[in-house]
Amino acid sequence: MKKPIITLLTDFGSRDHYVAAMKGVIVGICPEAGLVDITHEISAYEIAEGAYTLAQAAPCFPKGTVHLIVVDPGVGSSRRPLLAEALGFRFIAPDNGVLTMVLNADPKHRVREITAEKFFRNPVSRTFHGRDIFAPVAAHLASGIAPARFGPRIKDHLQLNLAKPARTARRGWTGTILRVDHFGNIVTNFEWSAFGAMLSHDFVIRVGLRSVTRIAGNYSDIAPGELCAIEGSAGYIEISAREASAASILGVAAGAPIDLKIGTSSAF
Amino acid sequence: MKKPIITLLTDFGSRDHYVAAMKGVIVGICPEAGLVDITHEISAYEIAEGAYTLAQAAPCFPKGTVHLIVVDPGVGSSRRPLLAEALGFRFIAPDNGVLTMVLNADPKHRVREITAEKFFRNPVSRTFHGRDIFAPVAAHLASGIAPARFGPRIKDHLQLNLAKPARTARRGWTGTILRVDHFGNIVTNFEWSAFGAMLSHDFVIRVGLRSVTRIAGNYSDIAPGELCAIEGSAGYIEISAREASAASILGVAAGAPIDLKIGTSSAF
Amino acid sequence: MKKPIITLLTDFGSRDHYVAAMKGVIVGICPEAGLVDITHEISAYEIAEGAYTLAQAAPCFPKGTVHLIVVDPGVGSSRRPLLAEALGFRFIAPDNGVLTMVLNADPKHRVREITAEKFFRNPVSRTFHGRDIFAPVAAHLASGIAPARFGPRIKDHLQLNLAKPARTARRGWTGTILRVDHFGNIVTNFEWSAFGAMLSHDFVIRVGLRSVTRIAGNYSDIAPGELCAIEGSAGYIEISAREASAASILGVAAGAPIDLKIGTSSAF
Repeated sequence: MKKPIITLLTDFGSRDHYVAAMKGVIVGICPEAGLVDITHEISAYEIAEGAYTLAQAAPCFPKGTVHLIVVDPGVGSSRRPLLAEALGFRFIAPDNGVLTMVLNADPKHRVREITAEKFFRNPVSRTFHGRDIFAPVAAHLASGIAPARFGPRIKDHLQLNLAKPARTARRGWTGTILRVDHFGNIVTNFEWSAFGAMLSHDFVIRVGLRSVTRIAGNYSDIAPGELCAIEGSAGYIEISAREASAASILGVAAGAPIDLKIGTSSAF
Repeated sequence: MKKPIITLLTDFGSRDHYVAAMKGVIVGICPEAGLVDITHEISAYEIAEGAYTLAQAAPCFPKGTVHLIVVDPGVGSSRRPLLAEALGFRFIAPDNGVLTMVLNADPKHRVREITAEKFFRNPVSRTFHGRDIFAPVAAHLASGIAPARFGPRIKDHLQLNLAKPARTARRGWTGTILRVDHFGNIVTNFEWSAFGAMLSHDFVIRVGLRSVTRIAGNYSDIAPGELCAIEGSAGYIEISAREASAASILGVAAGAPIDLKIGTSSAF
Repeated sequence: MKKPIITLLTDFGSRDHYVAAMKGVIVGICPEAGLVDITHEISAYEIAEGAYTLAQAAPCFPKGTVHLIVVDPGVGSSRRPLLAEALGFRFIAPDNGVLTMVLNADPKHRVREITAEKFFRNPVSRTFHGRDIFAPVAAHLASGIAPARFGPRIKDHLQLNLAKPARTARRGWTGTILRVDHFGNIVTNFEWSAFGAMLSHDFVIRVGLRSVTRIAGNYSDIAPGELCAIEGSAGYIEISAREASAASILGVAAGAPIDLKIGTSSAF
């Protein structure tokens, strides 16, 4: 059997014992697993941020990888633990929408409610299901237990309502900032596959108080500090500055609106 | 032989080469070891914080795991390097009390002074025993060298004086804050096994300038931002707020006092 | 075959999916690889900081380790991707000088331009060569592909101009601060092998507004908060304070000047 891979994505931060407790449980059940952190720095309780980060990281892994996600403001309540299959991967996560983007990417996805308590740690605490439910289930799944043994299929799992850019004029759309990354690059929700070609014409992207009218093939096309639109590696139009933080220059953060206008007479 | 596990717990932070240098030494000696970080974000020189984090993470790992701890303000001095056995685990750490909580949890613990310099890196620096002593010893231990070969048993290792809640009235106790976690949950030193049942009666917990009189089964029992006492996953009474930082609301940090009063006439 | 080791050193931070995306690509190509993070907290675009951290961490790993470095302000431009061999290690990095210190340490180093696109991820994005070029190349190299198959030898790779201490008086030198570490220790560019013996005489090290005239064998030789010069674990003279940040006390950061004067009449 191939060495199983388990990734971990949480909002637990890196100062506490929480992530290590989960890993300890996993290696006790599935010692041959290779563990890879996606990140533990999702903002506390920010499900949409987790959904985006998961959707970007997950597809880079080999098929069969178990992705374990614990961004779980509802821990201890009646929110269900889920086992999902999509894109050739398996996902273990709370039922709060954090899987929305990966499930949307595969119409053949299958979702189960995890009900088989024999795979849980005993006793189950009220506040740390990462250690007591999600980690042991992920480890048993990675060690070869079939998905069907964890619980029944469901269809009513929660899905986030992910905003798409809205057409607001004949040649205008309003979208939003999905993410500001470590370098200050602004990832918009304008998908490159739908909107990228439009940037070969004159265009104006309005973000914060400034307008961006230039598209760059890569960062070296622009001067240090200059703003540009670029085809981002995540599949969206990004607004970037060379060796500088576009988000700081523009004073914007995730959730802020972005306006795109096409055509020579574009202006705001 | 089963794949050995080595965990790492330090106050080295994540910006420098220090943790990687230790891991490089380890994989050179014991390439089959699985390495798991507990955390490297222990506050600099904070032995008690290391002791708490270790005590929470260590028991989640499979028996036989080697836990390597380097929170070591006395590096280079005559403080001894230790190899301890407790709870089915092995611990490599400086003799400064960082093992107090795990050793207290197992009356049959055994402690050795590490004297066998043949297991050290050569030469040993004056300021980085993590790389030069602790990492290679942990790797040799994980690769199957018997504990007795590292040095003689000792009994006079340092132990921290860990404060227990003190009875300060017929129905009153004063304890302290052990830890504020990433989410702002306040971990008190009131053990749930000793004090949890008392919270089924009327009670008042005084922390900072506020009183907490409510116990919650889980976070969803309370309104966002509301304060409650809860059975924490670490085995202690915790003070939490739903999707908010209890520590920020209360303006307290580790080491601050906590008062608990039981009974219908509880008041401060 | 021995289990291959791949280390990762980037300026990607720990909040985004970037590091995990690289690891996912690697484990898909070379599932048996052991992955070790050096750090992902190199300051954005800071090539010299990456060069120093790499030079400190790399030699601790076993020979044959593949060190993968992505501090890459020129991503997407015509800067070349490199495969270097030095000190018994292999290095995959952009051609921007980040390998300067490890290559300087081995006169027999060999450098190749990576041109074999069949080892790249397809398509290659414009802004994330870590995922699309460097990670898959490192994984193929670790899995046993010979260096020569990745591209031709070159000699004109970029090297940083690393300042050495300059003699500024008969018994005086001016150097600089290479690094301030997590603890506030100041790593100077005075190599211990060249300058350490001088500190057995009277000396004055001027850094910031203060003078340091004391050498310590280890931190316990000095009082808490006191400043001293010490033989650092990185091979340079360091300025440290016991259980305190020397850099904070002195108000200095990497790049600041350091003056050393030798002799009984030393004074500034």
